[in-house]
Amino acid sequence: MSFMRGWAKRRYIDLDNDIEKRLTDLIPENMARRGRITIDALLAPVKDILNRQRFPDKPLTERQVELMLTLLSSMDTDKDPGAARVGEREGRTIAPLLDRLSAGFNHGIGRSGHLTAPQPKAAGASLMQQVTNHVALDAIRRLGLENVRAAIVTPLSTGMSIALILGALRRTLGIKEVLYPRIDHASPRRAISFAGLQEIRVSTILEGDAVQVDLAELESRLSKGNEAAVLATTTFFPPRESDPMKDIAKLCAESDTPLVINNAYGVQSETIMHSIRSAIDAGRVDAVVQSSDKNFLTPVGGSIIVSPDKEIIDSTAETYAGRATAAPVVQTLAALLLTGHEEYTRLRAEQIENLTYLRDQLRSVADSTGQRLLEVKNHVACAMTLDGLDAREIGARLYNLRVTGPRVVEKGEEGSSVDNYPHDYIVMNAAIGAKREHIEQATVKLHKEASR
Amino acid sequence: MSFMRGWAKRRYIDLDNDIEKRLTDLIPENMARRGRITIDALLAPVKDILNRQRFPDKPLTERQVELMLTLLSSMDTDKDPGAARVGEREGRTIAPLLDRLSAGFNHGIGRSGHLTAPQPKAAGASLMQQVTNHVALDAIRRLGLENVRAAIVTPLSTGMSIALILGALRRTLGIKEVLYPRIDHASPRRAISFAGLQEIRVSTILEGDAVQVDLAELESRLSKGNEAAVLATTTFFPPRESDPMKDIAKLCAESDTPLVINNAYGVQSETIMHSIRSAIDAGRVDAVVQSSDKNFLTPVGGSIIVSPDKEIIDSTAETYAGRATAAPVVQTLAALLLTGHEEYTRLRAEQIENLTYLRDQLRSVADSTGQRLLEVKNHVACAMTLDGLDAREIGARLYNLRVTGPRVVEKGEEGSSVDNYPHDYIVMNAAIGAKREHIEQATVKLHKEASR
Amino acid sequence: MSFMRGWAKRRYIDLDNDIEKRLTDLIPENMARRGRITIDALLAPVKDILNRQRFPDKPLTERQVELMLTLLSSMDTDKDPGAARVGEREGRTIAPLLDRLSAGFNHGIGRSGHLTAPQPKAAGASLMQQVTNHVALDAIRRLGLENVRAAIVTPLSTGMSIALILGALRRTLGIKEVLYPRIDHASPRRAISFAGLQEIRVSTILEGDAVQVDLAELESRLSKGNEAAVLATTTFFPPRESDPMKDIAKLCAESDTPLVINNAYGVQSETIMHSIRSAIDAGRVDAVVQSSDKNFLTPVGGSIIVSPDKEIIDSTAETYAGRATAAPVVQTLAALLLTGHEEYTRLRAEQIENLTYLRDQLRSVADSTGQRLLEVKNHVACAMTLDGLDAREIGARLYNLRVTGPRVVEKGEEGSSVDNYPHDYIVMNAAIGAKREHIEQATVKLHKEASR
Amino acid sequence: MSFMRGWAKRRYIDLDNDIEKRLTDLIPENMARRGRITIDALLAPVKDILNRQRFPDKPLTERQVELMLTLLSSMDTDKDPGAARVGEREGRTIAPLLDRLSAGFNHGIGRSGHLTAPQPKAAGASLMQQVTNHVALDAIRRLGLENVRAAIVTPLSTGMSIALILGALRRTLGIKEVLYPRIDHASPRRAISFAGLQEIRVSTILEGDAVQVDLAELESRLSKGNEAAVLATTTFFPPRESDPMKDIAKLCAESDTPLVINNAYGVQSETIMHSIRSAIDAGRVDAVVQSSDKNFLTPVGGSIIVSPDKEIIDSTAETYAGRATAAPVVQTLAALLLTGHEEYTRLRAEQIENLTYLRDQLRSVADSTGQRLLEVKNHVACAMTLDGLDAREIGARLYNLRVTGPRVVEKGEEGSSVDNYPHDYIVMNAAIGAKREHIEQATVKLHKEASR
Repeated sequence: MSFMRGWAKRRYIDLDNDIEKRLTDLIPENMARRGRITIDALLAPVKDILNRQRFPDKPLTERQVELMLTLLSSMDTDKDPGAARVGEREGRTIAPLLDRLSAGFNHGIGRSGHLTAPQPKAAGASLMQQVTNHVALDAIRRLGLENVRAAIVTPLSTGMSIALILGALRRTLGIKEVLYPRIDHASPRRAISFAGLQEIRVSTILEGDAVQVDLAELESRLSKGNEAAVLATTTFFPPRESDPMKDIAKLCAESDTPLVINNAYGVQSETIMHSIRSAIDAGRVDAVVQSSDKNFLTPVGGSIIVSPDKEIIDSTAETYAGRATAAPVVQTLAALLLTGHEEYTRLRAEQIENLTYLRDQLRSVADSTGQRLLEVKNHVACAMTLDGLDAREIGARLYNLRVTGPRVVEKGEEGSSVDNYPHDYIVMNAAIGAKREHIEQATVKLHKEASR
Repeated sequence: MSFMRGWAKRRYIDLDNDIEKRLTDLIPENMARRGRITIDALLAPVKDILNRQRFPDKPLTERQVELMLTLLSSMDTDKDPGAARVGEREGRTIAPLLDRLSAGFNHGIGRSGHLTAPQPKAAGASLMQQVTNHVALDAIRRLGLENVRAAIVTPLSTGMSIALILGALRRTLGIKEVLYPRIDHASPRRAISFAGLQEIRVSTILEGDAVQVDLAELESRLSKGNEAAVLATTTFFPPRESDPMKDIAKLCAESDTPLVINNAYGVQSETIMHSIRSAIDAGRVDAVVQSSDKNFLTPVGGSIIVSPDKEIIDSTAETYAGRATAAPVVQTLAALLLTGHEEYTRLRAEQIENLTYLRDQLRSVADSTGQRLLEVKNHVACAMTLDGLDAREIGARLYNLRVTGPRVVEKGEEGSSVDNYPHDYIVMNAAIGAKREHIEQATVKLHKEASR
Repeated sequence: MSFMRGWAKRRYIDLDNDIEKRLTDLIPENMARRGRITIDALLAPVKDILNRQRFPDKPLTERQVELMLTLLSSMDTDKDPGAARVGEREGRTIAPLLDRLSAGFNHGIGRSGHLTAPQPKAAGASLMQQVTNHVALDAIRRLGLENVRAAIVTPLSTGMSIALILGALRRTLGIKEVLYPRIDHASPRRAISFAGLQEIRVSTILEGDAVQVDLAELESRLSKGNEAAVLATTTFFPPRESDPMKDIAKLCAESDTPLVINNAYGVQSETIMHSIRSAIDAGRVDAVVQSSDKNFLTPVGGSIIVSPDKEIIDSTAETYAGRATAAPVVQTLAALLLTGHEEYTRLRAEQIENLTYLRDQLRSVADSTGQRLLEVKNHVACAMTLDGLDAREIGARLYNLRVTGPRVVEKGEEGSSVDNYPHDYIVMNAAIGAKREHIEQATVKLHKEASR
Repeated sequence: MSFMRGWAKRRYIDLDNDIEKRLTDLIPENMARRGRITIDALLAPVKDILNRQRFPDKPLTERQVELMLTLLSSMDTDKDPGAARVGEREGRTIAPLLDRLSAGFNHGIGRSGHLTAPQPKAAGASLMQQVTNHVALDAIRRLGLENVRAAIVTPLSTGMSIALILGALRRTLGIKEVLYPRIDHASPRRAISFAGLQEIRVSTILEGDAVQVDLAELESRLSKGNEAAVLATTTFFPPRESDPMKDIAKLCAESDTPLVINNAYGVQSETIMHSIRSAIDAGRVDAVVQSSDKNFLTPVGGSIIVSPDKEIIDSTAETYAGRATAAPVVQTLAALLLTGHEEYTRLRAEQIENLTYLRDQLRSVADSTGQRLLEVKNHVACAMTLDGLDAREIGARLYNLRVTGPRVVEKGEEGSSVDNYPHDYIVMNAAIGAKREHIEQATVKLHKEASR
């Protein structure tokens, strides 16, 4: 019998008759019935999440999510008033505020050296984590990657999650180096290094304004038995374009080379998700990593790793050394439940509108200041040249004008993912969850600064 | 069948087999069992409160109380996602913060013109209120008034609760005036006036240092059919002593006069509670009012009215005009459950120690400054003369020195509950919940000020 | 210079040099400046509320409101770690959960027998209350009653607030009875009775479908020196229509009779507010009472009393006997700040749309079931006949179908505010904050029940 | 002058005159002053923490800590109502519940690839993190390691923190392997592997009942230029004893070998801390890692890394690949502030009492069941033989009897950190924060099971 059924039974079944009568006396029978109906209706979506562990169509309310988290964390042994706790760590906290800061998951998640191993002291946290992994898997599948089969939500950044996967690949497949089509971003490179692997940078080439991986170079470096993995990227700032996932996955399949896809903020884009799905169908993809905050509007700190192969997820989970904070997992679960599929679809549509708006605005700034938009395919961001201007100064001024997040790169500097990019430029994003008025304010301020 | 049983059943009983199996797969069977045991053990006291509605021996934890409040407020119709709400008031709130400020009891309590009538839209709040009334009744009984039979926790101050009772007595018994042994305190007098009744002040007399009701005068004013009630007082500042409850209750019994006892902060004292119990046994007592914050360390705002006669409580509940805020009721329930009988007993013992300490400290201040303690029976406070000093100035200085709550009365001023009291004096309290160090600091500062 | 900016500056700049240097070392100067700007911008609306005490145009965020409440409650002496507390009540609480349940306002509001008197132990609560009263006054003025001059937010239901006003009028003007144009609602009648006054019911008459006060009868009962007040009503269920405020106010002016207006849920309607403003301009209005929850979507429990005459508000505040719960006041403040004028205007427009929709829906139900709409002027509700049907049974069924708030009255029963009303009927409301889909669901269910 | 006092003053005094007058009218001057004093006194410790960044002697209250966290998180740009946010990640959240789950630190901590780099979008989080690191450093210094100079609180388990340090050592010093005196615990070994390093296990030997590192073997493996680091351990379960830190540090100094100390739960023991301090003084220690939850009673998830060398901390911080969750850092800060030095000292004394009690209890169980205590030096735990009994079965039964945390090892199995340990045994802990009654219950249940 399921433990939830058992739990429910135990809680209330043994009320003695006398009490029953008293309760009926207090609250008229039809009111009591309405009370039952209300709480049943309120809890139905919670029950559904616990049972089916799916990404909901409609969002749950905050009350429902909080109640679910409270019930789950109440199953951990640090809540058991009858437990005799003689371990060296027992989920003890110095004051109740800490329980609130952890949503009650004081035992964290995982078991020494295995992120998803059920923790005997923390049945509730273990269940919470499993629900999260399943809901996240369902969300990623419904948002485009129908062909993945397993997921884990890690309490780690995208970069650290990549390190975890690479560590697992080294342990299981003996890889020694990582072919990395150049992206001028520190985190993934640190991830490769942290996992004790050699980074082999694959060059990029300039195609018009766009910076693309040199696919021929990548191909030439791939061969069977080369003890390498490939780390390819879907989302980065223009002028860098996405790596051609299907082509790379085919090359990896042919050469028996593992492929890890850094899909940091690609879930928001149906097109990007489609390209990954095709890659999985057509070739070899070992794991795809996405940020929980960039895609699902949680606080920073978690990632979702998915794979067509359950074993890769398992060996990745086994790479984490110790028990981990539950916070990013709880936050990801809450965000998924508070969003739901319909609202996510709406947010995606809004993102596309905002990107169009950003492009129009930037084009108009460019037209009136003698600059131009860079012709680059990008599903989240847009770039405009700043040639002949003091780009660095413009960036600093925008920061002081409370524009957050634009990226300014000067000709010849790191940042464009290619040597000697021929323009100074600025990048702005229309990411999921952004507000149209923010784009308006940012571009108006840019206009002023670029016209000085 | 009880609605709680029904509720529980509905929530989980219909899980299909497939799901059951998945859950068992996720969490090893023995862990799931431990999870059940933990949550059962955690919820057992909650269940016990809901079923037996008694003042617990051991305190519940904050988690238990919060969970109970969440479950109860989840039964109100404003939480029902399937309700179609077409009333003029539906527990709607402008933002989730308000639900947190109300602990979810957005419908308040009561039904137009009846504080304890079950509210069809608010089964949970109705149940919460009934539980509160029963737990409070049990607490008052176990803390000394075994002979009361009904209680209501009102969301009103002690004074307003007295007004409510007096209003009910006027409506049911036709009383027109209230004999009030003089206490120099505004609230009860306003209560009499608010209820549209005539206050007949009964004089006090000086017995040594003590101020006592003139029992002979009270007796002379009592007679059958006099359309009066008596409002007597157990707790006030020295030099005023408690009214002799047993004597007054006997006089009231003889003259068929209703007696209301203002027991504002008397629950903390076993002696006072004993005197009221004796009064109930020996004569006539209609209602006893106590402050929830002064006795049970809740935020200010609620009272507990008890009576040996359930009908008096009912007619009092019917005197409130409208639906009321649930907050003071929720707070009183929470405080009772977070305390429990054993801890209350400990707090009472500590109060006695603190009072002794206060007396010793004040005596020592008096000795060294040429003053003396007033010889007055009082179970909470203690008074010292300030003859020959600028009493008012000392009071002001103590306030600025962050001593809160001392009471300074100058010779001949209102405050001593008698005309022409022959001393300037200061009163300090050692009330339940006070800290010994506060008494120390306050008396040290007084010593400094009185020695200037 | 603004105080918040000053505060922020001092945090980083007035620190002694050693510390300053360390901080500057830690956080780059331009970042620290951005941090200051952010917190200044976040707190600016809070500061504005504290300084100007006005109903804001734009809503504050929950974070802003919570921060403001925390800062205010932090000024009460129970938060002072250096206070020596020797009173009989000191805002002590048995556990931190209680502080959360009270938003930290453990001292409540008021001072014995005066609701708005500053409480020396609770500077923060006193300030909070004053801010609330001023913001509420500004809101009521901007929402239609420009000619009122004072307001108090009471922690009491509309009915109890009416009792408070009537008590004050009795004390100050010596009124003995209340002329009450008949409304079949228990609370106001209990209020009159609670205040120890005689209710003189003024009859109603039938005008077509509508029930209206018999103005001639009212006029005939009014005369100078009659020791009466009038209690008139703006909002009730059809078929009862609003009392003609301007006419009544003129009659009251002519006869020197105080007029109290029960405007329970009239703030939502510009038309009703306009009629009251005209009444104030044209005649005598002493006080106007409105529910905080019915108009401003707070939890049940508070009222807003306004008056063109500050003294009436003062004497009303002095009628409350004791210190009161702060909760409904805090909730009202929070709701006002979380709404703001622009959003309230939007809600009002939506209410009008919903009322039109309700009327259309009910008319269509009526048409298809052989019933008809009652022709009655009402700004919130709409009524349909149920002639020839089992009205009581329909009401019960709707309750079980989770339709909350409809009102069913059978021919000849209390409820229509007139003797022998010639129809069975049902009332539904489209009150402020209601959702269109609720109206849809309710009327669809009614259609089914009325067609059986 | 203090900034908080300044702030308070400005609130009431620098306001322009009109407002000032209104406020003074509202709240009597002396009350306003008391309000200021209260809030100043309440905030003084908060200010002190922000300015001096030290481990406090006295604990802060929950209100103080929450207020501090709110103020800090209010400095992050996602709170700036005037910011135009056009980055790809902007601390956006789908619903307010998420802000509560993150205590408002939606931006997390760190900057791509550097855990302690100030994040321009998150001045508040950056400051919070720096305060945490400094407070943690001060705590570790005052609790025994006066000779460390830098600290970082990581949002990672002890094992992952070890991996981070080892990764930094590989990057900066080119180490390739880790000499690891055998401990039968998965996490540290995974850490070594995750960092891409070779584990060289150093054998242990049996000395009476105790298992100790074979120091001779370790010495023989150490030599200059060997590209190795040593990972030594202070805390593990008996029969394993702590590694002799001073000796190892001397060997490491002689051979220029980096030494990392896994001090997972050693802060609770003055003796252990003393041994590490001596090691630092006498030889080479690169970094010491301690769990935040095991030592400071936070929820699981963070570690504190300290070093005598600031550069090691810096390079460790640079090894994390990406931005990280703020939650474990916030929780560690809160725990440190809610404890303070005096309370920690008390907890340490209690831990020693509990350990003595545990030993006495176990000895008495052993005596009456024909077993004996293992003679092993251990500052947290105690072990008893289970020879001739079914140890595994006893462990399973204790789990079902709700004894959490005991460790049962059978003869010859992994767990005793040596090959062929000659006893079955059970370990129980008296860790900091444990309750005496838990030890009592656990040993009573063990007695019952061992006597069957």
